Amino acid sequence: MSFTKRTATCGDFSPEVSGKEVVINGWVDSARNMGGLIFIDVRDRYGLVQAVIEPETQAELAARAKELRSEFVVWISGTVRMRENPNPNIPTGLVEILVSDFGIINRAEVTPFEIKSDIETNEELRLKYRYLDLRRQPMQRNFLVRNQLYQLAHRYFAENNFVEFETPVLMKSTPEGARDFLVPSRIHKGSFYALPQSPQLYKQLLMVAGYDRYMQIVKCFRDEDLRADRQPEFTQIDVEMSFVEADDIMALAEGFTQLVWREVLRQEIETPFKRMTWHEAITRYGSDKPDLRYDLELTTITDIAKGTEFAVFKDAASNGGEIALLNAKGCAEFSRKQLDELTEHAKRYGAKGLAWMKFTADGVNSPIAKFLKEEEIEAFKNAAKAETGDLLLLMADEFERCYTVLGALRIEVAKRSGIFEKVKNKYSFHWVTDFPLLEYSPEENRYVARHHPFTAPKNEDVELLKSKPEAARAKAYDLVINGYEAAGGSVRIHQNDVQQQMFDLLGLSQEEAEAKFGFLLSALKFGAPPHGGIAMGFDRWVMLLVGSDNIRDVIAFPKTASASSLMDEAPSTVAEEQLKELGLQLLKKPE
Amino acid sequence: MSFTKRTATCGDFSPEVSGKEVVINGWVDSARNMGGLIFIDVRDRYGLVQAVIEPETQAELAARAKELRSEFVVWISGTVRMRENPNPNIPTGLVEILVSDFGIINRAEVTPFEIKSDIETNEELRLKYRYLDLRRQPMQRNFLVRNQLYQLAHRYFAENNFVEFETPVLMKSTPEGARDFLVPSRIHKGSFYALPQSPQLYKQLLMVAGYDRYMQIVKCFRDEDLRADRQPEFTQIDVEMSFVEADDIMALAEGFTQLVWREVLRQEIETPFKRMTWHEAITRYGSDKPDLRYDLELTTITDIAKGTEFAVFKDAASNGGEIALLNAKGCAEFSRKQLDELTEHAKRYGAKGLAWMKFTADGVNSPIAKFLKEEEIEAFKNAAKAETGDLLLLMADEFERCYTVLGALRIEVAKRSGIFEKVKNKYSFHWVTDFPLLEYSPEENRYVARHHPFTAPKNEDVELLKSKPEAARAKAYDLVINGYEAAGGSVRIHQNDVQQQMFDLLGLSQEEAEAKFGFLLSALKFGAPPHGGIAMGFDRWVMLLVGSDNIRDVIAFPKTASASSLMDEAPSTVAEEQLKELGLQLLKKPE
Repeated sequence: MSFTKRTATCGDFSPEVSGKEVVINGWVDSARNMGGLIFIDVRDRYGLVQAVIEPETQAELAARAKELRSEFVVWISGTVRMRENPNPNIPTGLVEILVSDFGIINRAEVTPFEIKSDIETNEELRLKYRYLDLRRQPMQRNFLVRNQLYQLAHRYFAENNFVEFETPVLMKSTPEGARDFLVPSRIHKGSFYALPQSPQLYKQLLMVAGYDRYMQIVKCFRDEDLRADRQPEFTQIDVEMSFVEADDIMALAEGFTQLVWREVLRQEIETPFKRMTWHEAITRYGSDKPDLRYDLELTTITDIAKGTEFAVFKDAASNGGEIALLNAKGCAEFSRKQLDELTEHAKRYGAKGLAWMKFTADGVNSPIAKFLKEEEIEAFKNAAKAETGDLLLLMADEFERCYTVLGALRIEVAKRSGIFEKVKNKYSFHWVTDFPLLEYSPEENRYVARHHPFTAPKNEDVELLKSKPEAARAKAYDLVINGYEAAGGSVRIHQNDVQQQMFDLLGLSQEEAEAKFGFLLSALKFGAPPHGGIAMGFDRWVMLLVGSDNIRDVIAFPKTASASSLMDEAPSTVAEEQLKELGLQLLKKPE
Repeated sequence: MSFTKRTATCGDFSPEVSGKEVVINGWVDSARNMGGLIFIDVRDRYGLVQAVIEPETQAELAARAKELRSEFVVWISGTVRMRENPNPNIPTGLVEILVSDFGIINRAEVTPFEIKSDIETNEELRLKYRYLDLRRQPMQRNFLVRNQLYQLAHRYFAENNFVEFETPVLMKSTPEGARDFLVPSRIHKGSFYALPQSPQLYKQLLMVAGYDRYMQIVKCFRDEDLRADRQPEFTQIDVEMSFVEADDIMALAEGFTQLVWREVLRQEIETPFKRMTWHEAITRYGSDKPDLRYDLELTTITDIAKGTEFAVFKDAASNGGEIALLNAKGCAEFSRKQLDELTEHAKRYGAKGLAWMKFTADGVNSPIAKFLKEEEIEAFKNAAKAETGDLLLLMADEFERCYTVLGALRIEVAKRSGIFEKVKNKYSFHWVTDFPLLEYSPEENRYVARHHPFTAPKNEDVELLKSKPEAARAKAYDLVINGYEAAGGSVRIHQNDVQQQMFDLLGLSQEEAEAKFGFLLSALKFGAPPHGGIAMGFDRWVMLLVGSDNIRDVIAFPKTASASSLMDEAPSTVAEEQLKELGLQLLKKPE
């Protein structure tokens, strides 16, 4: 119960403290008897240091030390001295502690996996014993970087005059977009709160309330079927500013990015970041969040392909679609099997098929060559700047699908050709702007907002809302880092009439708009300032900074892909009494 | 849509900038035509500044300015000049802006209440139009203080080597204490997450994981019937440390308190704070969180009262209870009606009755005087250090009720006698320690934990757990500021066997303990360090700092006492389809 408290941490040891009396507290990393000496490596968050017992003169200590096992919690007192055999691999490796006394503070059973950097253990076991997994050095590093990001965010936004706020976690359910998590109300039986998918409306209201600059590091929730990089609860750095335009918000985000890369990775990055419109990103890279660490650009060949005899091309063009290609540089040696796999990959993204064309020393090799004239093939080759050894992948489809399939293939080719591996430690930063404001949903037979219904149209496109809504561009911008949407934001609608018009376009009746968003519409009547903001995906940023592609490695207590916590076994059943208090019962399965 | 962006905020104006050309953006606080000049006061978060139009030479501007109304959003350009009639009441009052141009950025309807400091408007209306209420200067001040507290917490704990973490919001329901908010799982139908009442177990696991110092500013949730100063979601500064004892944690909290009072209120407070045991707090002040801004101490008179002929006293003493009194100094003039009210007040706290005794110029006046000998009354008077003009309030009951009723009367007397008003701007800080670890619940016929089941007993009381559990004291400490529990914490149990023993005492079977807290019991087997922590009530701190007694004035979007949000009307009904997806249906009312 009582123990001798430390006077130093395990990271505090260097030749300067040689000769000093110290006490440390920590975990036995290893205890071993070697050549007549007993070495005890002791570890804490701050480092690892070697303690030594010399059995010849310290018989009592040596006898007691036999009991020590890995992960025991101990206190050790002793004198720091220079090591005879320094270990240059650890920061404290020049010195050691000659033990004068020690005690076991708490014992440890044999852990289900070793507490070391590289383990082969399956992730389920690691998640079940999360408190042990979190002891491993790479995990500790992840969470110290995560901590650094919190601190930099606190500092940066405070220095820039932002006011930190907390918005409600128990809010109103306004399903528009992803599915809400619901929280039944006990007091108002039959009514529910929703967990926020984002504090969007609250932060806009804080601008209406005059707070000028808002920031919050905030948990958001989406009840979606999880993909590998999604969690039901995730964290955002959420920001909103008044009396600004898009440029101001982008500059602010660039400053933050620069600070973070400087402080965490000691890398100077250049600002302002490159910008490209959504249209450019789609047509050149096949993605609204292209990875620009490598080139592999797409080429549009609609004009030269529409005149060919190949029916697929002709039809696509006459239906208003596009024909485009990706030049997979130096991939002409891809096997038939590999090409089949690429075709399958394309189909997963909605392609009906995939045409290819190899340029080899023996000339052109392509299943579609027979439909094309020699000069047409030559024209494709020139447009693609293709050389012998290159592989062209060709798509013809409606605008967005044509390019996004090629965009997916671009990433796949980068992985298969080794490009991805080469750029692993690089970072690329750029903005994608001018997103379409709306897209037409054939399923719902109405327009839906690409970002959210509160995004402002570009000034010059406001008139299009009446005549040709799908052509209107949004004052929206995404920050893309290495092909990930690291941040996204927009200037918001601050006029009541424009917001009304937007709801109309989205097919919300006035009653529905009033019921769901009446408080926002009302707020926009009482002097709303022009405002806009941005939200940065906190977990994603940490992943980028530590170089992990597993979101669970940067969240202390994550959920699995089925939204379970393997450690505490949440979610779990509750007593019927609890449900009754909430006015609920489980739905009986249909018989 | 477009507007001329500001070059200064409304707080940026002083004689030094006289002569400068500026643009401001903000809200019209007032626009008035006086003596041939048009004055427009413009406001933003940073301040308020006066702009002037001179109709004689600025006819066009003057004509347009007629349109301006309060709360319009405007941009104004002009030249700063010294005012002819300075206004010393506002920081910018020495200068004004001579308008050269202006534009209306957004209009405002007449607001449902005036945007000014003192309003009589009922709170319902203020909550419905929260975004307008938040524009008022006293509210802006509250949230700027709240922001200051966030920033100080970030800074202080980072400087002290704490690692910031986020613990899950979707966690396991382990009802022990207050009621959980539940979140139905869609993927695991029939299962539920709970919103955290505190991140207690997660922070302990982070200590087991070796992170040494944890901090988080975290939302916590309790589905309780709300009192005036409670909200269903509230914020804590949550802290945990390893290899420490209670003193270390208390010193850390004192350092933070000192920093906050210095930075926010410019007050130097002395540390270490006074400490008193729970027993002392109860017997001297009748509360485990006494307000020490004033004296009004209780006096125990069991020894001298038990020998009297007054049956109430005799019975209480012979049943092991106590007899005690409060000397309400100078309150002998309280009327019969006032004394009746005090008796009612005592009854609300569980008293069966209340005895009183006045010392007036005419001698003693008391309904119980007839049961007492003259020397007994004299003995009471001496014990209470009473003088002519004083009023004694006497209680006889079982230990805790006897004192807590007098403690409630102590506060009531302070309010009624004007003491409360006198100490309004003072602060008192002290610790209450040595809480009982357990208390016996006659309803549940078992012991329950006074703090929570993870609190460690004092070393010297561990043996009592077997022989006399109710006598064991906890390593727990509460920081009391002005009679509020501003922070509470404890050293935790870090040994598996003690934790098991604790669960046994609380009547949890091994199976129940395993099902609810198996992961904690398991973690305590793998090398748990000694650890402890504290949680500070963030909202309460802001209330203390701004001098408010309404928690809704320091929470941006609060809920009412019935846990509703009047602005967005949460909670609300949801579509049956949504419930079906969750495998739930509303419980039909019994017919």
